[in-house]
Amino acid sequence: MTILGLDPGYAIVGFGLIESSGMTSREIRHGAIKTEAHTPMQERLLAIYEDMGVLLQAYKPDAAAIEELFFNTNTTTAILVAQARGIILLACTQHHVPVFEYTPLQVKQAVVGYGRAEKQQVMEMTRILLNLPSIPKPDDAADALAIALCHAQSASSLLSGY
Amino acid sequence: MTILGLDPGYAIVGFGLIESSGMTSREIRHGAIKTEAHTPMQERLLAIYEDMGVLLQAYKPDAAAIEELFFNTNTTTAILVAQARGIILLACTQHHVPVFEYTPLQVKQAVVGYGRAEKQQVMEMTRILLNLPSIPKPDDAADALAIALCHAQSASSLLSGY
Repeated sequence: MTILGLDPGYAIVGFGLIESSGMTSREIRHGAIKTEAHTPMQERLLAIYEDMGVLLQAYKPDAAAIEELFFNTNTTTAILVAQARGIILLACTQHHVPVFEYTPLQVKQAVVGYGRAEKQQVMEMTRILLNLPSIPKPDDAADALAIALCHAQSASSLLSGY
Repeated sequence: MTILGLDPGYAIVGFGLIESSGMTSREIRHGAIKTEAHTPMQERLLAIYEDMGVLLQAYKPDAAAIEELFFNTNTTTAILVAQARGIILLACTQHHVPVFEYTPLQVKQAVVGYGRAEKQQVMEMTRILLNLPSIPKPDDAADALAIALCHAQSASSLLSGY
């Protein structure tokens, strides 16, 4: 199955597409949708929607995986990220791609095997699991691949009855 | 000019359309987009997007007005509302409807003339300003009409050079 991992944002949406068969996964593509700073939010949201459409149309993933949003101290940013996240969910729905949500803890647990792993450890393990020559860039794309791997493991566990 | 006021939510989106010429406004239509509880969020967001499209296509408003989101204690709800709000902004953008944002303080100031007005006062003044027989239902639609009135006053002030 192909899984599209997504790291939502309004300035940058990281994405990472993997093909997973049972316990092994390979990277198909990763990258980021970026929107212009100093551009009205309405236009940035439209750009995300349109680029998501291109991505979903091109790769037709079997599933999408995205992190649950949590609030930190910067609530204004959180609202803006949540708005972009809504649009990402909409685009997936319109392309009939089911979206699965995971907490950061679940992603760390799945990729590193340790829920308090550092960000750098998660990225390095993502590189190793996907047999990549270096840690994917930008960080948002590496995060997206980690989320995709988390869903791959979760889906695999479900299938094998663990 | 026609102004579509919007009160965003994921369970209910209040809307209120008014026609405003200078200092007087009349109500064209008000109501609410409602989504089914116990339905996956992806489907609720799609329903909002589709109903917004129908509304925008039918009335082709000159502008939309929406409240800025603020955080209260229920941050989980705030994230879900922000996701729906992103979709509302997207639908407006795709229909070439500019969106203007106002704080609750600005809405109260515009409608009642007093930034600390109670919700009930805002709804009653909305009824009076639009010459309606009773306070519009549901509350979300009344709120949306108040936001539309806020923009009408703001736009009128800009035009007349206040």
